[in-house]
Amino acid sequence: MASEDAVLAANRAFYDAFEAQDLNALSGIWEQSDRAVCTHPGWATLHGWEDIRKSFAMIFDGSEGLQFIATNERVQVLGNTAWVTLDENLLGGGLTGTVAAMNVFVRRSSRSRWYLVAHHGSPITTTFVEP
Amino acid sequence: MASEDAVLAANRAFYDAFEAQDLNALSGIWEQSDRAVCTHPGWATLHGWEDIRKSFAMIFDGSEGLQFIATNERVQVLGNTAWVTLDENLLGGGLTGTVAAMNVFVRRSSRSRWYLVAHHGSPITTTFVEP
Repeated sequence: MASEDAVLAANRAFYDAFEAQDLNALSGIWEQSDRAVCTHPGWATLHGWEDIRKSFAMIFDGSEGLQFIATNERVQVLGNTAWVTLDENLLGGGLTGTVAAMNVFVRRSSRSRWYLVAHHGSPITTTFVEP
Repeated sequence: MASEDAVLAANRAFYDAFEAQDLNALSGIWEQSDRAVCTHPGWATLHGWEDIRKSFAMIFDGSEGLQFIATNERVQVLGNTAWVTLDENLLGGGLTGTVAAMNVFVRRSSRSRWYLVAHHGSPITTTFVEP
């Protein structure tokens, strides 16, 4: 599998785990490190896997579930780092709308697996119009 | 200069150029490529340097200037890729507030210089409280 495809598969697995509200699956997708960072839409940035894990537990507790429809996915791979930008089109839970997201993945050479190390999502409220 | 310091210097140069509303300086800081991506707070993601350049021109046209005070800067370097997370504390232009930001930089080995390839900022409206 090409690196780009492997990264997109890891990216898809992240949203599948989010949809399934599966904290165990998420734990296997994220890099469980102090350098892991997560910015939920409108939130301050969380640093370190422990706070990130708690935030997802809290989100799952308070939500009836979300469906993510990804559009505009773009992936870049450079060595053992990759970043994906996409639009998360959300359905459900009263949160319908579109979130602009960027996800950074790192590969551990020894395992050839990609882990999510940074997630940043922000609600889209403005549409760019060329001046 | 250690790689981390070089990345933080490039990150600082980005905000200096933003504060100075200096489009020429910005042009030397960004990777002028199709893969460059930029998500201004509340905006949809812009793809490619040309649209990014236009967006900054538009922002500079409509703004009296912003001051950025960076806090919580964290940098990670992995090979020729680096990412920085920080809080942009904004003063001026009626936009006072804090933006959570993530910036991705890439190094061109031949030049040992770091270029900004992805910028994502989102307004902080929620404070995380542990469940």
